[in-house]
Amino acid sequence: MTTPKISRYPVPKLEDLPDDIRARILEVQEKAGFVPNVFLTLAHRPDEFRAFFAYHDALMLRESALTKAEREMIVVATSGANDCPYCVIAHGAVLRVYAKNPFIADQVAINYRKGDITERQKAMLGFAIKVALRSAEIDDADFQRLRSNGFSDEDIWDIGAISAFFALSNRMADLTAMRPNDEFYLMGRVQKQ
Amino acid sequence: MTTPKISRYPVPKLEDLPDDIRARILEVQEKAGFVPNVFLTLAHRPDEFRAFFAYHDALMLRESALTKAEREMIVVATSGANDCPYCVIAHGAVLRVYAKNPFIADQVAINYRKGDITERQKAMLGFAIKVALRSAEIDDADFQRLRSNGFSDEDIWDIGAISAFFALSNRMADLTAMRPNDEFYLMGRVQKQ
Amino acid sequence: MTTPKISRYPVPKLEDLPDDIRARILEVQEKAGFVPNVFLTLAHRPDEFRAFFAYHDALMLRESALTKAEREMIVVATSGANDCPYCVIAHGAVLRVYAKNPFIADQVAINYRKGDITERQKAMLGFAIKVALRSAEIDDADFQRLRSNGFSDEDIWDIGAISAFFALSNRMADLTAMRPNDEFYLMGRVQKQ
Amino acid sequence: MTTPKISRYPVPKLEDLPDDIRARILEVQEKAGFVPNVFLTLAHRPDEFRAFFAYHDALMLRESALTKAEREMIVVATSGANDCPYCVIAHGAVLRVYAKNPFIADQVAINYRKGDITERQKAMLGFAIKVALRSAEIDDADFQRLRSNGFSDEDIWDIGAISAFFALSNRMADLTAMRPNDEFYLMGRVQKQ
Amino acid sequence: MTTPKISRYPVPKLEDLPDDIRARILEVQEKAGFVPNVFLTLAHRPDEFRAFFAYHDALMLRESALTKAEREMIVVATSGANDCPYCVIAHGAVLRVYAKNPFIADQVAINYRKGDITERQKAMLGFAIKVALRSAEIDDADFQRLRSNGFSDEDIWDIGAISAFFALSNRMADLTAMRPNDEFYLMGRVQKQ
Amino acid sequence: MTTPKISRYPVPKLEDLPDDIRARILEVQEKAGFVPNVFLTLAHRPDEFRAFFAYHDALMLRESALTKAEREMIVVATSGANDCPYCVIAHGAVLRVYAKNPFIADQVAINYRKGDITERQKAMLGFAIKVALRSAEIDDADFQRLRSNGFSDEDIWDIGAISAFFALSNRMADLTAMRPNDEFYLMGRVQKQ
Repeated sequence: MTTPKISRYPVPKLEDLPDDIRARILEVQEKAGFVPNVFLTLAHRPDEFRAFFAYHDALMLRESALTKAEREMIVVATSGANDCPYCVIAHGAVLRVYAKNPFIADQVAINYRKGDITERQKAMLGFAIKVALRSAEIDDADFQRLRSNGFSDEDIWDIGAISAFFALSNRMADLTAMRPNDEFYLMGRVQKQ
Repeated sequence: MTTPKISRYPVPKLEDLPDDIRARILEVQEKAGFVPNVFLTLAHRPDEFRAFFAYHDALMLRESALTKAEREMIVVATSGANDCPYCVIAHGAVLRVYAKNPFIADQVAINYRKGDITERQKAMLGFAIKVALRSAEIDDADFQRLRSNGFSDEDIWDIGAISAFFALSNRMADLTAMRPNDEFYLMGRVQKQ
Repeated sequence: MTTPKISRYPVPKLEDLPDDIRARILEVQEKAGFVPNVFLTLAHRPDEFRAFFAYHDALMLRESALTKAEREMIVVATSGANDCPYCVIAHGAVLRVYAKNPFIADQVAINYRKGDITERQKAMLGFAIKVALRSAEIDDADFQRLRSNGFSDEDIWDIGAISAFFALSNRMADLTAMRPNDEFYLMGRVQKQ
Repeated sequence: MTTPKISRYPVPKLEDLPDDIRARILEVQEKAGFVPNVFLTLAHRPDEFRAFFAYHDALMLRESALTKAEREMIVVATSGANDCPYCVIAHGAVLRVYAKNPFIADQVAINYRKGDITERQKAMLGFAIKVALRSAEIDDADFQRLRSNGFSDEDIWDIGAISAFFALSNRMADLTAMRPNDEFYLMGRVQKQ
Repeated sequence: MTTPKISRYPVPKLEDLPDDIRARILEVQEKAGFVPNVFLTLAHRPDEFRAFFAYHDALMLRESALTKAEREMIVVATSGANDCPYCVIAHGAVLRVYAKNPFIADQVAINYRKGDITERQKAMLGFAIKVALRSAEIDDADFQRLRSNGFSDEDIWDIGAISAFFALSNRMADLTAMRPNDEFYLMGRVQKQ
Repeated sequence: MTTPKISRYPVPKLEDLPDDIRARILEVQEKAGFVPNVFLTLAHRPDEFRAFFAYHDALMLRESALTKAEREMIVVATSGANDCPYCVIAHGAVLRVYAKNPFIADQVAINYRKGDITERQKAMLGFAIKVALRSAEIDDADFQRLRSNGFSDEDIWDIGAISAFFALSNRMADLTAMRPNDEFYLMGRVQKQ
């Protein structure tokens, strides 16, 4: 069997990339031990690559009342609702690592209502999925419900904006037929000793 | 009647904004004669603002076989499918201006199948709406159909990526209840003399 | 460019029409300054034409607690939900004129939840769209909700019957590929002095 | 058990009705042996009653290449798709009588694809249901498909217009909670000798 | 006209069937006066036949607080929601017989909300249809609602399990294009004297 | 943290179960090393338990041109479409084991169109999901498409019947809030040495 393609589009070689993009990719490779395919796939268009990861970092790395695991839950739940293999498998791995929980990603991706998460997190994911699937119906009652679960308006922006950003991300993965790296499937499933 | 709010979230004053963001806003104001509310609404989060407009420019200003009017058609058709008032009304205005056609925005926003556009453009918008509403079903047959309508794979990336970016944009407009500026409604409807 | 067709079906000449139909058409032409294409398109079948406009007038011209602008809001919101270009564009024009508001038609057609209308009008349009899209689920709770917003049962009949009539009208426009007249696009957008 | 209500709205007494409406009702009573509840329910609004039955007659009684049974099939199939009890049960009765077939109404109401009808009739009902449920997507290919099944453009208008009229009719029945007469359930099920 | 096929698959002859299956079929024939086609269709696969009817009997014949008519209501309502001719027509007949009510099957199959049934039965069917169409969304609030209508948790299992079993049954009927016997259409519609 | 419940309903103790059911459970425990929760959950109703597993075995253990891995693919793909955690996680484990492929279950559960499977298997899963989600639309063209992919009519019965059986199974898992055993998550992901 030949190596499966990771994208419908040409994948640039590291040495052909602009310096800043190559540097970012080498950095993630050093940290993760491999290069997640989203970096190679999107590097086909350097300007879009830069904007994509700037947006990603602005949402996923900022100071927030949402933990990093909660932010990944939003990614996994909405990507599950959108049937996006790359995002479910890659971010599911990250969620398992952040939450130190080998079960949570599958639970949240398939049906968050039955996951081992708090009622507050279920309210968060209910809203995230509404943003993903029928955002035109967002109304003040949604904000009231989230506030009564202890979320500030800035937290609600975080939930909504992460859902919105992965609405973009899921669609780019579908457009390019982005393939999840083999490494993601097992990551965070086996407790390190 | 009081002035309607333009966002559910606080809108920063120009003088409180970082220099680069204020400069961008002043530039658009000079060019358009007013500040589109998307700039003020998103300025609430400067890092996300920068990434948003970097992404926007990477897609909408790049060299492409798609005309600027065609790119705006994609925005208007997918935003119509998502019932997003800000994006339909603001980008509808831009589309009318680029296409020099006072009718096209309403046609494309409501039902592109009956618009005064070419068969090629209908194929483009059919794919754009598939990306917007059910991107998990994108397959090679979609690519074949677009290629047979004269689109290159890079053009298809443009169509898909613009749809994907406005999937994000529509959701941010819904989250913030972003209000279209009054100026957009009439723009491009009356021929200048 | 040739003149676009206004219907998939043959459009009769005025002089070939039965007297009552020609008279009605001349009357509307005198009043509006042009003949809306719905008259010419449906004149292809005189008996259906007569019934259609008798029904229209029975609902839209009768004494009612709903203002004429509110009745047009129902038309525009449900036609928007049905993606019907003729009805959104033609009745959007009428709505702007009746409401003396250049913005309201686009707002109501795209997403009434965010329009500059009262809570009572939003309740009215929520019910109208339920009649348009899932009338089998109408129940007593809908009636209670509308009554608590100050609507009488006769008002509710008006709301429901206008939605029902435009369910027919939207489908006839789709069947015939009825083209909106150019005149409608700008009507009511520019304040007369 | 008390007599069930036939409408959410007041039902006028025969003697209180305008002459033309009372005459029509007495005529149908003489012919059918009872008064179908649609007549009494809609008589609450005489002008709408007149327009409704004028429209009905224009479509259902006109000369057409569609047989009367085929026209009732369209009513039953689309009313089934809309989950409308009055229209399925009342017009199902009429269909059984016209088709002299005690099985056809249930078959067509539940799933026409498996009914004992011709391929041509299945094409007719497929289009009728498209008009009922997603008429915005009607396109030239639908017309080609029907023409290749032997339907003229006038026949297609008949199919589409009957579907459109019963889109209205189903919604009025839902709005008024119109109750089917007991007589309809058995009508046409037992062969007369 | 030739005798219509009762299944897409070969239908075994009685004499070729295993003894236990033939015995079951002869028993039902003796009781009903004919052999419902579900027995002949599924006999194509004896092991599946045995499991199917064991499951059916476990649910439909067990002691339960739900009456036999109520259990058939669940079958008819969910089969109606699934557009399954065999199950609606055959179980509609059984429902009429159990309920001694010639109208109830059509009412429940088309739109249970308007049927001549109790509020408690409407709550039961609302849940049954949720199990049929979107069971992933079942939550504790559904259980509370049913309990407040007087259903025990064992009753709720009955409702849910009957809906689940007929989810299977409807799909087997669709797969095999199972044809309802002519006898079912009239059964229970005419009061015996 | 307390041990999470495995069912909304009481779970019987092994010693309280009928002999045949206890024997079956002990057998699976010996083979798998643990008792999958579906056995304990459904044992609450012994007669339904017996029928459920008789049906399961009739489909999943019979001689068939479909491999055991292919049958599990059908389970995983349709359970993914139904958002059923127990069935995706438990049968995903079985699929990985049968296919000796640690990636396939996640791929098939999320979006089979992009999985590392053959075109023939994609046709199989396309039909399986049609049976799961809109079986009323099954027609002869589906059979033709599967035959042209090398499936016999008996194979098609297998595909359809497995989808139908897991339509039941998914709904029972949702009704009981059946919890996947922790053991399933990792099973088949790590190659044994």
